[in-house]
Amino acid sequence: MEGKKNLQVAILIFKGVTALDFVGPYDVLNFLPNVKVVFVSHTAGELYKDVGTFTIQATASFDQVPNPDIVVVPGGMGTDALMGDKTILQWLCKVHETSLYTTSVCSGSLLLGAAGLLNGLEATTHWNLLEFLTNFGAKPVKARVVRQGKIITAAGVSAGIDMALQLVALISDETTAKTVQLSMEYDPQPPFDCGSPEKAGPEIVSKAQLHMQAEMQQFAAELSK
Amino acid sequence: MEGKKNLQVAILIFKGVTALDFVGPYDVLNFLPNVKVVFVSHTAGELYKDVGTFTIQATASFDQVPNPDIVVVPGGMGTDALMGDKTILQWLCKVHETSLYTTSVCSGSLLLGAAGLLNGLEATTHWNLLEFLTNFGAKPVKARVVRQGKIITAAGVSAGIDMALQLVALISDETTAKTVQLSMEYDPQPPFDCGSPEKAGPEIVSKAQLHMQAEMQQFAAELSK
Repeated sequence: MEGKKNLQVAILIFKGVTALDFVGPYDVLNFLPNVKVVFVSHTAGELYKDVGTFTIQATASFDQVPNPDIVVVPGGMGTDALMGDKTILQWLCKVHETSLYTTSVCSGSLLLGAAGLLNGLEATTHWNLLEFLTNFGAKPVKARVVRQGKIITAAGVSAGIDMALQLVALISDETTAKTVQLSMEYDPQPPFDCGSPEKAGPEIVSKAQLHMQAEMQQFAAELSK
Repeated sequence: MEGKKNLQVAILIFKGVTALDFVGPYDVLNFLPNVKVVFVSHTAGELYKDVGTFTIQATASFDQVPNPDIVVVPGGMGTDALMGDKTILQWLCKVHETSLYTTSVCSGSLLLGAAGLLNGLEATTHWNLLEFLTNFGAKPVKARVVRQGKIITAAGVSAGIDMALQLVALISDETTAKTVQLSMEYDPQPPFDCGSPEKAGPEIVSKAQLHMQAEMQQFAAELSK
């Protein structure tokens, strides 16, 4: 892990981001001594809230991060409101030109799509949003992580951890990725076997959809205040 | 999920907390409409940094949270420096008297131990710290999650997600816990099978220990500045 080229990882943050979407990849990538993470948004120093009481501080504005090596776009209830945010979309297009890897978690891939980066490519997102990828010319794939050249998209929320570990193996090596996985004791033992719609069955799928719909409406109401 | 008693979840935060330790449980618990999470520390409104560039804002001070229903104590490089922090240890003792559940992730259990809450009990923590639990009269157990009455301790970093899903089943019901698991698409597919010392083998264990030692020294040097 020593003597490697320094890498700047830019994590996009915004109002309504889901914390785990980016904290999973953050803690994985931050493990590497040659990685420096910047949390990028419109205003450096500003606090951005999720749909609860969690806040994350932007450490840089878009113009301060013109050439990140790795871009991570998390998802959350807030992505929908950003589909027309030209500053964000233009920044994504620009940084993708020179990035080593451009990645997303959950609905973050819809932002990559809106920026025109997924046209003709396979991609994934949260299971409940897969169909929307076609709006951007992407081919939806039900998979935990989808890699197409330097674009890597991950499924919903917790999938960012799996994606980031694969990314560490790419930018460093397998031994380092394994060392990270052990250090964060990532030996998952979910109490139930229902992490995908197929495993969970229609009753739980329906409950989850209703909940996410209610949360989205609540967030939209809050935004319009 | 409707009509349930409102529950206050207090997550302890501090300088040097590991982000994923508490964001896992946070995103799981925050899913419940009847849960309100407060991030508690010495000073409400203050930003607390991890060992990288991540910050979390305290939403309440200790005296503002005298009776949380659930207490979550995350770990991180910062816990070692808190072993003699009387305000924190006394707050933990006090809130444990009335809590429904008092929980920890990673080295957070050592703080529960220092507060005298683990005496004679089985408990777990990060695999690299298990032996230290005996300092507090606890019996170390190699397990993902250990429950002893209303005290629940989880293994390292990522284990907080598994712990919190079990907790949701306890404070709500299994269907709700499954709904949360599906909503966050927690269908883990780690790229390697090395999340525990036994699976990873001695070479990776040794690398992980060296890395954590270096990080600890770096954090201690930063604290003493």
